[in-house]
Amino acid sequence: MKRIKAGLIGFGTVGTGVVKAFERNREILEQRLGAAVELKRIVSRDIERPRGVEVAPGLLSTDVQSILRDPEIELVIELMGGYEPARTYILEAIAQGKDVVTANKALLALHGPEIFEAAKKAGVDVFYEAAVAGAIPVITAIRENLCINRFQSLFGILNGTCNYILTRMTDEGADFSEVLKDAQAQGYAEADPTFDVEGIDTAHKLSVLISLCFGTPVDFDRIYIEGISRITALDIQFAKEFGYKIKLLAICKEEGGRIEARVHPTMLTQGHPLTDVDGVFNAVRIVGDFSGPIMLSGRGAGMDATASAVMGDVMSCVRNRVTGSSGRAPARGYRCEAIRSLPIKPMDEVVSQYYLRFMVNDRPGVLAKIAGILGDRRIGIASMIQPERHQEDSVPVVLLTHEAVEADVRCALAAIDALEVIREPSRFIRIEASLD
Amino acid sequence: MKRIKAGLIGFGTVGTGVVKAFERNREILEQRLGAAVELKRIVSRDIERPRGVEVAPGLLSTDVQSILRDPEIELVIELMGGYEPARTYILEAIAQGKDVVTANKALLALHGPEIFEAAKKAGVDVFYEAAVAGAIPVITAIRENLCINRFQSLFGILNGTCNYILTRMTDEGADFSEVLKDAQAQGYAEADPTFDVEGIDTAHKLSVLISLCFGTPVDFDRIYIEGISRITALDIQFAKEFGYKIKLLAICKEEGGRIEARVHPTMLTQGHPLTDVDGVFNAVRIVGDFSGPIMLSGRGAGMDATASAVMGDVMSCVRNRVTGSSGRAPARGYRCEAIRSLPIKPMDEVVSQYYLRFMVNDRPGVLAKIAGILGDRRIGIASMIQPERHQEDSVPVVLLTHEAVEADVRCALAAIDALEVIREPSRFIRIEASLD
Repeated sequence: MKRIKAGLIGFGTVGTGVVKAFERNREILEQRLGAAVELKRIVSRDIERPRGVEVAPGLLSTDVQSILRDPEIELVIELMGGYEPARTYILEAIAQGKDVVTANKALLALHGPEIFEAAKKAGVDVFYEAAVAGAIPVITAIRENLCINRFQSLFGILNGTCNYILTRMTDEGADFSEVLKDAQAQGYAEADPTFDVEGIDTAHKLSVLISLCFGTPVDFDRIYIEGISRITALDIQFAKEFGYKIKLLAICKEEGGRIEARVHPTMLTQGHPLTDVDGVFNAVRIVGDFSGPIMLSGRGAGMDATASAVMGDVMSCVRNRVTGSSGRAPARGYRCEAIRSLPIKPMDEVVSQYYLRFMVNDRPGVLAKIAGILGDRRIGIASMIQPERHQEDSVPVVLLTHEAVEADVRCALAAIDALEVIREPSRFIRIEASLD
Repeated sequence: MKRIKAGLIGFGTVGTGVVKAFERNREILEQRLGAAVELKRIVSRDIERPRGVEVAPGLLSTDVQSILRDPEIELVIELMGGYEPARTYILEAIAQGKDVVTANKALLALHGPEIFEAAKKAGVDVFYEAAVAGAIPVITAIRENLCINRFQSLFGILNGTCNYILTRMTDEGADFSEVLKDAQAQGYAEADPTFDVEGIDTAHKLSVLISLCFGTPVDFDRIYIEGISRITALDIQFAKEFGYKIKLLAICKEEGGRIEARVHPTMLTQGHPLTDVDGVFNAVRIVGDFSGPIMLSGRGAGMDATASAVMGDVMSCVRNRVTGSSGRAPARGYRCEAIRSLPIKPMDEVVSQYYLRFMVNDRPGVLAKIAGILGDRRIGIASMIQPERHQEDSVPVVLLTHEAVEADVRCALAAIDALEVIREPSRFIRIEASLD
């Protein structure tokens, strides 16, 4: 039986899961592969901390070169995260002719093209199923199974922390900051939660998925990103009253050769398949011209779920190595030569329905003024709630619009916010009304 | 650019979808593959009937040997269905060194081992993503992405006809035969619907999935199969009252080296992720020890959705051919040498909760008699409805049990049915209470 030697860089939560999988399910791996995979070296800054898994003495090292320079190691599993030195290590591994399995979405979102082109040149594989949506096989589904399709849209719940916070806010009527604190205490949110709650992590993953769906590089700065930190219990309450649920969605759509790429809190009709994806679960709903809608859901993070995806990639690398077919499928689904830059549609041109909330002085004529300004910008009102709920002397007015152009909405809101009767900056949340 | 020539056997609905995909998305295929695929020959019994797709003159033939004996054709797409002559054609294609893509679950369920072993020997690929759940990439997910996992359970809604009928029965309170007739008129059910409504098609697909999950051949006759034709509007109504929905599920579970393999109408708690899968949609929920629960859903049948899966397989075959790695992943996920027969747990030993419905004479002491017989067989009652609804002089008594052993339940029901007060054979439906 052929033996492939692998090195693991990064021995945190996911790394520990990978070591556990190598141990516990070694027999399954060998029966499926017809080859053995030996974890020859684990590199970590801290090799003293107990992780609750058994590691043979001599396996651990703090010296990354003990992996990168070891010609016996054919496969590098990068689970350290971050841009540097992960980028340098991965490029060096590729240059040494090693395959790479990584879960590093941040790195791929910003340096994917450099890494994938280096891999192409070296004839090695770079697999990254674990970078998006944990155990859910969305990368492979797009790259292999659905690859005949012209994709129309992709919606994703891609960040477990945000989904956990929004789910609890929805269930408990609690405020963002309160739930965040509790999520941090329970380990569902980082001490510095910015990457998660501000939508950056979701955008990293969206960037990776866009590239796979459409064969275009994505200038990360062109993705519109809005997190969940400004969502209030009040907005969630109103959403419910209108029959909606708020989710942080990654959205991409293709129309006329342009791509919409945006991450923002989104109101979905109760009953939309994504509204049932709660807590730390992730889901992706993708629509192809032949496949129709396909939805994949499961655990998007965590030690074991992410290890499942990493090990799937490890086994694919080994299959390719053993049959001499490394690089058989291009890492981005499209061959390097076929990658061409598609323009991102400016956010100002995006068309959506909107939830608008104004805090106004409760006095006659206010609604007429607001409606007038919206009407001037061709923004139609679909429904309205003006509840008898007073916060001090201001009262919320909530409108749902028909489809409108983002620039018009922003322009109207600026004009409305300048009215004397408006007590605080208006809030808006986009509504995704259609399924596709 | 390398050109691979393919032959299509069977030009029905799915075949037409495949021809359409070759035409419409040829550019995507070539950009992703870096190779071209030419449909060189289409064989069908009826080459006159217009299909609404354009086919170059000379492409059509009634002679299957014009594909099987053409050395230029490296890839055969079998979409004729049925056991014979499909089996013979596939074996001959394999013997000629051609790859095979098929959607033929009936054939694979009964003759899979023969076909896969022939493919192994010939060093060619046999792919069959389209055989189970249409466009949903469940085969690849199990074979490649989730393959490190020890699977605990798999639940599937795998037959669109049954799910469509049950959904309409649930929504409309209509009876089976009535909805079936309408489904036939609308093309959602075959003129002879036996394979679908009696659960046989679902069991074929379950057989394929069990083999992939556990590396065991499945003796098709050992799968317990019960269709939906005996489900009544009354049972659906009671299910609702208890907070359940009835779905035809394919179920497999592994415990202690034995496999549960069963297809039957199943009551699921409203809110279970599979209860939202309605109409012709299919879904699979699979639980692995590392991945946790993964759910995949989408269109399980139809021209375009099935063509999407077929084309994904075609492109995988081509990738392997171009890189000389045909057979890189074993067709069943486990290598032929690692396949070993796991015993199927006899249905009598299966443990489940049950919905029981008795039609009784409305007279004192009846319930005591029923409860006594159930108690004698260690079957605990979890809840009960005895509504004030009279059908002639009989009245339904409905019980939900705690977990009980199938043999005990059948034995108790036989004893109860022998009571003089029982007006018609008792009905039972299994309840899947846990998610995993």
